[in-house]
Order: sequence, then C-alpha cells, then structure tokens
Amino acid sequence: MGRVTGRRRVLRVDAERVVRRPDTLVVEEPLEIRIAGRPVTVTMRTPGDDFDLAHGFLVTEGIVRSPAEVDMIRYCAGADEDGRNTYNVLDVALADGVALPDLTLERNFYATSSCGVCGKASIDALEVTAAWPIASDDLSVDAAVLAALPDRLRAAQRVFDSTGGLHAAGLFDAAGELLCAREDVGRHNAVDKLVGWALRERGLPLAGCILVVSGRASFELTQKALVAGIPMLAAVSAPSTLAVDLAERVGMTLVGFLRGPSMNIYTGPQRITTPAG
Amino acid sequence: MGRVTGRRRVLRVDAERVVRRPDTLVVEEPLEIRIAGRPVTVTMRTPGDDFDLAHGFLVTEGIVRSPAEVDMIRYCAGADEDGRNTYNVLDVALADGVALPDLTLERNFYATSSCGVCGKASIDALEVTAAWPIASDDLSVDAAVLAALPDRLRAAQRVFDSTGGLHAAGLFDAAGELLCAREDVGRHNAVDKLVGWALRERGLPLAGCILVVSGRASFELTQKALVAGIPMLAAVSAPSTLAVDLAERVGMTLVGFLRGPSMNIYTGPQRITTPAG
Repeated sequence: MGRVTGRRRVLRVDAERVVRRPDTLVVEEPLEIRIAGRPVTVTMRTPGDDFDLAHGFLVTEGIVRSPAEVDMIRYCAGADEDGRNTYNVLDVALADGVALPDLTLERNFYATSSCGVCGKASIDALEVTAAWPIASDDLSVDAAVLAALPDRLRAAQRVFDSTGGLHAAGLFDAAGELLCAREDVGRHNAVDKLVGWALRERGLPLAGCILVVSGRASFELTQKALVAGIPMLAAVSAPSTLAVDLAERVGMTLVGFLRGPSMNIYTGPQRITTPAG
Repeated sequence: MGRVTGRRRVLRVDAERVVRRPDTLVVEEPLEIRIAGRPVTVTMRTPGDDFDLAHGFLVTEGIVRSPAEVDMIRYCAGADEDGRNTYNVLDVALADGVALPDLTLERNFYATSSCGVCGKASIDALEVTAAWPIASDDLSVDAAVLAALPDRLRAAQRVFDSTGGLHAAGLFDAAGELLCAREDVGRHNAVDKLVGWALRERGLPLAGCILVVSGRASFELTQKALVAGIPMLAAVSAPSTLAVDLAERVGMTLVGFLRGPSMNIYTGPQRITTPAG
C-alpha cells in the first residue's frame, strides 16, 4: 500500500506568504487488465486492491457472476520492455467454459451504450446485462441510519484526509454497519473494487446492501450497482437524469445529496422509513 | 439547450419533514462519434456543444491539429432503429489526406496508456503525441488574478447552480479574461468541449492561456491541456502524482487547491507572480 500516496514539493501561496513545503498527493497509475493474454482495458487507478478492482471489472462488464468463474489473477511477470514487473499489469485466466469477452471495438462500445444511442436504448441494453433482478422487499432502512453513512464512510477513508484527491465507495447493511470501503482516484474504480471484494468474500448478488458513494451518481455507477444486484445507491452529491431513469426502471432506490440529516429520494422511497412515515 | 437539464420528482427529507417536489437534474446521455461511418467512441455527456465536444475529441486523441483537417461534422440522420434522429450520434468526415485513427482495440489502449504500463511509460508516450512544445516564457500571471478565476468560472456556469451536478472548464488569458467556458457531467468532456471551441474559433496551440477546472487535476486532464498546447492548468481541487509528474516533465504550470486567495503551485512557478516575489 506504499504507493497509494506520493510526496511532491509545492509552493503554498496565500494572502500573506509563500512557503515551500512537501505535499502528499494521491497516486494515479495505469492498470492494464489482460484476459487470456489479451489486453482488455487500461484504467487510471490508485494502486491498492488491484485484485478487487480486476474482479469487480469482470463482474460489472458482465464477464463473470461467481468467483468460481475466475481461475486466476496475477501480476504479469516481465510487464515492461526491460522485463521488470511494474505491478500495473494483471493477467486474468477465466475458468473453463466461461466465454471470453468480444474484444472488437464496436462490440465494446455497444456493450455499454447500445445501438441507436439514446438514453432509453442504453437502459434497454442494461436490462439484458443485469443478472439479478432487484427485489422490491429485500431492504428497509431508517432515514436516520442512512443519514449517518457518509460520516462512517469518511471515517473509513484512510487516505482522503491526507490528499483530498480520492473518491470513496462503501457497502453497508440495513443496520448501517460498514461491510467494506474502497478508495480510488477514479469513482468507477472505487465501486469496482467494492464489487470485486464482494465477489470474492461473500458472493453476489448484494441483496440487502446499500452502496454509498462520496461524489455524484452517474449512469455508470448506477449500472454497476444494478449488475451487482444492489437495491440502494446513495450519493453525497447530485444524480444525473439517466441515473434516475435507470433506477426507476429497475426498481432501485436512488438517494442524492445525502448530507447531514437531509437527503433527496429520487426513486424507490418504499425502502426508506422517514420521520413522517 | 433544452436538454441540458431535466426535471424529476423527488422526496426531500430533512430533520423536520418530508416534502414531495420537482428537482432539476443535469441531463446525461450517450454521444457516439463516428469517423467515416465507423464508431470510434461513445461518451456519456451532457447534450449541448456537441460539435465542440467532437472537435475537441479529435484534437485530444491526436487525430487532427487544425480546423482544416475536419471536413464535416453532422448529426446522423436515422440514428436509431426506427429511423429517428436521436441527436446522440455524430458523423465526422476528415479532410482528404488526414489519416483515419487505428480502430483496433489494442491500439486504442496503448494510445492513451502505452505498453509496459507504468506512469513513466504513459508520460513517454505522450511526449510523442503532443504536437506543440510548451514554451517557458509565453505566460506570466499575477497570483491575485489567478485566485479570482474560479469565481469567474462559476459565474459563467449557467447550469451548475440549478443542478449541482456539472463540471466546468474555463479558458482564460493572462489578464484573467474569460475566453470560453464549457460544462459537462463528465470532467474530460468539459475540457474537450473547450478545446474543440478553440480549434474552431481561434486555432491551436493555446499558448498564453490558462485552463481552469472545477474539480481535480488528473493525468487525463493534464494530457488534454498538453495536447492543446496550454501552458497552465489550475484546478480547484487536488492533483494526482501522475498529473504533477507529467506537468513537470513538459514544463507546464500546474496549480491545485485554487481557493480564495490561496493555491498550491506544484510545477512551473516561474509563470506566477506571487506577493513575496
């Protein structure tokens, strides 16, 4: 975990003075994921929990659904031209019988967007991808419990306070207990790390769980929650229209602007017990 | 511009009460960019300034460097299965003699990351891509001028205050005058929209200009600034290590935590005149 943060020199300027001092920054490095020796993606990520990230990527891209479908993940030996291990290349072997993803470029585009390219077409395509329907009655959370989750997530962020540069994602149960927290310079990576942890540690789907994210609720994050079978996504900041539309369609609860005692419930309010009932 | 925001119903919960009301959200929809009829990318973006976004994408991916290299950009007729125009698919025709990008998946990965996949390799690859070296003496900005830019950018954000969901990017001159501002649900799209505007309106490189972004300074944003020839990138939030390392290597000024009268100057301090000289 030594590479999660790095020090750089900085000139700190304020109204009164200029001071030269070291500053702690979040590390950002590329991670290449190969399947059966072929590169599948490169993501800019914060090193750490790389195996979780790879497992989560395999799930949220619809490639695997159970840990048994992953035969092996390891850092590539001889990853760079001089034969050194950069610890930035992961090699995945899928179990026998698991279909390799289609690696043509067109196919990759349409896997996440779909032809005709409109919001509705994207949502339609996803309904096919999602392995587990979200049940309407598997989760009930008190609004006061929900309101306390961002602070709990923040407390679990080991790095954020030292860099100000990391997104966090946390998985909680209905009583507000933290199951797992992950951080990354990329918001989607933090969620993939969580989903990968869940795949390895407890299996999917994540029925009965709440996903809390430190930033905004985009379509992509809502999609990842759906594919992992998570019935509730709560974001500290704003959702987009397409995130709300997807949540509405699949029966997911989407909460935005979760700050202090207040929140906006966009979809699925039946899972949240409010003061007014 | 009617599609930049959308209304959705929300249950607003706070400590005292629960109110049902409409909420204004930022619109997020996929935009597919085709070159010579072949899909090249799909990005989740906020509709508006789509032509700027496409032009900027062509520049920051290293496909074009001058407006004359783009023969035509138009919305695809019959974009969806029923022959309707979704206004979410753009068709680009490059001018005669402009090389089509290599659309194999591996090539696309390595265009933005490079083989061996470490931060250093990524930076090496970029130095080849960047068309214009950044001059060390083409810009001098007073720290007080710089400190005022985030407020000016915010004032230019037409949508942010109503949704809380948009990233902004602004291009300023050395006197602090706003040249152009663009917003998007995706931080990289906001910068591509700016670069595309610049390509069309004044040509590249953007020597003498300052790029201000409302969020963090990632490697990707620093890369986009480099490819457009921008000598100074200033972010309201934190940079990553790789962003700082890239800026250092290419001689770009990188400022982070630009808030009120204070800022952190990570690289290229010679371009900023500070109170202490």
